[in-house]
Amino acid sequence: MNSREIEVLKFEDGRCNRMNDVVIREAAVTLFLNDEELATLVCTPQNLKELAVGFLCAEGILSKPEQLTGIKINEEDGLIWVEVAGNASGATFGKRYITTCCGRGRPSFYFVNDASGIEKITSELTLTPRQILNLSDQLEGGSKLFRATGGAHAAALCSGEEVIYFYEDVGRHNAVDKIFGRCFLDNVPRNDKVMAFSGRVSAEILIKVARMQIPAIISRSAPTDLAVELAGQLGVTVVSFARGNRFNVYTYPERIKF
Amino acid sequence: MNSREIEVLKFEDGRCNRMNDVVIREAAVTLFLNDEELATLVCTPQNLKELAVGFLCAEGILSKPEQLTGIKINEEDGLIWVEVAGNASGATFGKRYITTCCGRGRPSFYFVNDASGIEKITSELTLTPRQILNLSDQLEGGSKLFRATGGAHAAALCSGEEVIYFYEDVGRHNAVDKIFGRCFLDNVPRNDKVMAFSGRVSAEILIKVARMQIPAIISRSAPTDLAVELAGQLGVTVVSFARGNRFNVYTYPERIKF
Repeated sequence: MNSREIEVLKFEDGRCNRMNDVVIREAAVTLFLNDEELATLVCTPQNLKELAVGFLCAEGILSKPEQLTGIKINEEDGLIWVEVAGNASGATFGKRYITTCCGRGRPSFYFVNDASGIEKITSELTLTPRQILNLSDQLEGGSKLFRATGGAHAAALCSGEEVIYFYEDVGRHNAVDKIFGRCFLDNVPRNDKVMAFSGRVSAEILIKVARMQIPAIISRSAPTDLAVELAGQLGVTVVSFARGNRFNVYTYPERIKF
Repeated sequence: MNSREIEVLKFEDGRCNRMNDVVIREAAVTLFLNDEELATLVCTPQNLKELAVGFLCAEGILSKPEQLTGIKINEEDGLIWVEVAGNASGATFGKRYITTCCGRGRPSFYFVNDASGIEKITSELTLTPRQILNLSDQLEGGSKLFRATGGAHAAALCSGEEVIYFYEDVGRHNAVDKIFGRCFLDNVPRNDKVMAFSGRVSAEILIKVARMQIPAIISRSAPTDLAVELAGQLGVTVVSFARGNRFNVYTYPERIKF
């Protein structure tokens, strides 16, 4: 329920094997407050009751036990309805929420819809294992803010051989957005480039990379199941756990020349 | 600009020293699109031009160079105005954004405002270094989803001695929200408890912990400067980098009995 097995190519010490790997589940669930759509939460879809109630507590919408008058969960479709006494609504609290799935049916299609305007990537890019591990090393080597503070994520736009742009930020998403912004400002083609990334490859990160039309992401960390699924649809090669002498390839291994 | 030195208590191998530590900067910046407030981005406040443009690209609002007609940045107050051709607005794209600082003046007060309804925590809780490192070990030991996938964050509500509730999720915030929800549903007092956490202590995490009225957070990772500042105001002891035989104390060290 909170993870899934998928087939990957594992590269280690010069050898390459096809085997199963366990990836974390990531799904969008939509929260309705008194029948009004309030928020879409991207989460591991387990303990949804705790998640919904805790989210409302954290937002200051729920504070006393008697305020919670009902809760209904549809796990399969990722829908949660919470009833709170006193006609509470998001608007009552002056809040607006990220939510793009209004009227779109199943919220699990949230990302698929968000991704639907993105052209599937075709690219002549190829990478060797040496290049992959070298770019991962360069990313780590350049992460000065992380070394100083332990609190930064790094993203780099790279050719097969070297880092072109490099940003660190307290937020994973921001580091990638800064790359996107620099590419836009400099009008840099991305179809022959690679994104090297310190953080986890979630669906939101994958969509950003695909929207940039970058054909491959090399991460030092883990991917999610939803990101791998979207990468398959959008034509992105996902390489994760690229550290030392090893990495895993989750999608489009044909771009890697072993 | 992207980090700050603050004084901390460093505990290592039974010894305790006061010294300076470098923490990453975290700030809220508000993005206006064609003079309409669009989003508040919580980030390391550097390369704000790239961030703003990249955010708009990632959201599908900007795609061609000629669409960007102007950009103005007030770094000190964390304000960015972007002009995009064709009367683009967030609403055009069917998007609504998290943004709670409308009409509140300086957006850097976003979190301070968000935190303003939270009562400053007073608690009799004390912790020994042994307890701190033991809870950090218990958190790591319980993180089965992380061990299986490499992609999960863990949060645990603890007494001084043991884990009471434990959740893992692909999102840091969700893991903490699930704890909050469970506490609400079970009506559990939190004033004598501790939060053990695998991830970074950002301002948003700190505010959740303070809203729960938990007097201390023990993290295996780094804090941000804004989280440390808010912890000082809200009465939360922040312990970070709690691994092996060491940890740092950023606020309210009087709760720790060395």
